[in-house]
Amino acid sequence: MIDILISKIESLQAPIVVGLDPTAPMLPARLTAEHTLPDALFAFNREIIDAVHDLVPAVKPQIAMYEQYGVAGMQAYAQTVQYAKSKGLVVIADIKRGDIAGTAAAYASHLTDTWGADFATINPYLGGDSIEPFTQVCRAQDKGIFVLVKTSNPGSGDLQDMPLANGLVVYEHIAELVRTWGAELMGERGYSRVGAVVGATYPAQGEALRKRMPNTFFLVPGYGAQGGTGAALRGFFDENGQGCIVNSSRGIIAAWQADVRFGENNVGDAAREAVFAMKKDLASCIA
Amino acid sequence: MIDILISKIESLQAPIVVGLDPTAPMLPARLTAEHTLPDALFAFNREIIDAVHDLVPAVKPQIAMYEQYGVAGMQAYAQTVQYAKSKGLVVIADIKRGDIAGTAAAYASHLTDTWGADFATINPYLGGDSIEPFTQVCRAQDKGIFVLVKTSNPGSGDLQDMPLANGLVVYEHIAELVRTWGAELMGERGYSRVGAVVGATYPAQGEALRKRMPNTFFLVPGYGAQGGTGAALRGFFDENGQGCIVNSSRGIIAAWQADVRFGENNVGDAAREAVFAMKKDLASCIA
Repeated sequence: MIDILISKIESLQAPIVVGLDPTAPMLPARLTAEHTLPDALFAFNREIIDAVHDLVPAVKPQIAMYEQYGVAGMQAYAQTVQYAKSKGLVVIADIKRGDIAGTAAAYASHLTDTWGADFATINPYLGGDSIEPFTQVCRAQDKGIFVLVKTSNPGSGDLQDMPLANGLVVYEHIAELVRTWGAELMGERGYSRVGAVVGATYPAQGEALRKRMPNTFFLVPGYGAQGGTGAALRGFFDENGQGCIVNSSRGIIAAWQADVRFGENNVGDAAREAVFAMKKDLASCIA
Repeated sequence: MIDILISKIESLQAPIVVGLDPTAPMLPARLTAEHTLPDALFAFNREIIDAVHDLVPAVKPQIAMYEQYGVAGMQAYAQTVQYAKSKGLVVIADIKRGDIAGTAAAYASHLTDTWGADFATINPYLGGDSIEPFTQVCRAQDKGIFVLVKTSNPGSGDLQDMPLANGLVVYEHIAELVRTWGAELMGERGYSRVGAVVGATYPAQGEALRKRMPNTFFLVPGYGAQGGTGAALRGFFDENGQGCIVNSSRGIIAAWQADVRFGENNVGDAAREAVFAMKKDLASCIA
């Protein structure tokens, strides 16, 4: 699936993943009038997916935005994954799960037919045996994971930036582990099925990690609303303009609210225009 | 809720939480004949809860065991939490979530009426701003969290045992952060609403952490099936025999399969007997 993702990025010239993290205030009144809240999330996502599926390779639903509505929210999440897959999109499940081995194997259901995603984000705090159940599924079913290395939030430094006695900082140590975990899971295009999450808000660290992990694909959150810009991302890409996919959530899905030209009947139009603008912004940093 | 948990442990003389992590092979045939699999998980849990609710203060459903069955599994999880609450049990949601602030706020729904747990386990990799949304709910609604510090699995050392330049190892640094995060959330009984997960499989580390974190309550996984024993846990308790609650999952819920005296109609009897045995084993380490 990493090879498919890379090929789609290439053919669409769009290293962009649309974050499907809708919140209630982003929803047009016409949808909340017609649907209960979790159902309205899916109805909203469907409009976004219909609008952007021919422009971007992937979507990334953030499961917490659905989970917060209980079981009905999980249903909306499942429908979102299924609908995105039916439109040919690669689905990156932003679940940030991580647990001891037997439990991690249960969470790996996010990458099987049960939940149906192609990639999942994974938290490395529990170490290698918590990753292994996911890499098994990656190997058996050509799926992928993105392990949290350097996250985009201000507090990421509380642990991730701590200097280790061996001269690395914690996120660099995790980067080394991620390289090791991914070494046996290389795709055909030079990148492993085990990728890394590297926040757009830390451009110097992203550039250094690109050099440290030449075969690790990056999922990059924090672009746009969180403050990251295209120009700052040059170092996240490799010399072929590949190697990372940049997430934008509210910059695309809530674009209809950010521009007076748009109204609640232009959710999709506004999302398309935001994708075009993001493509242009990112083009500046692709070699 | 930390005070209620401590009082219940005291009055029941049982620092025991029953891990509700059922797997398909643990289910009696009579239940799988009558129910679909996720529904059978709840039916099974109900028997366990009915059998042990007067003996133990708390249960800990591991959400992954339900999540692996999709939306219907999440329904079985929700029913389990609700039923345990209706029986007066404290519910520790073993969810190990962790994400950036806005997303963490969504995950905090596990501690509100949406999902209804009293405590949740939290992963600290993303740092302080990822914890804050949970501590807000802890403060407003008297709930609690257990932050992963030193987990019970063999691979926990890959990150958690790494020596830092400041002389601590990573899990000790997290322990210091947990102390800080919990300082403003003290209950009446000397323990904070922000607790720590410390694996039974690392007794020396648990004892050292008890000294390092005198006001931090421990949730202790890894007893029994994972190899931890009661005698090894002496150092996890404080001088009053308080300060930690020990989880056992399959040692209790699958006890009916481990003893020839029991059969599939003795799920509850076997669970009760396993709780009595665990109480006795733990009594040796309580001051």
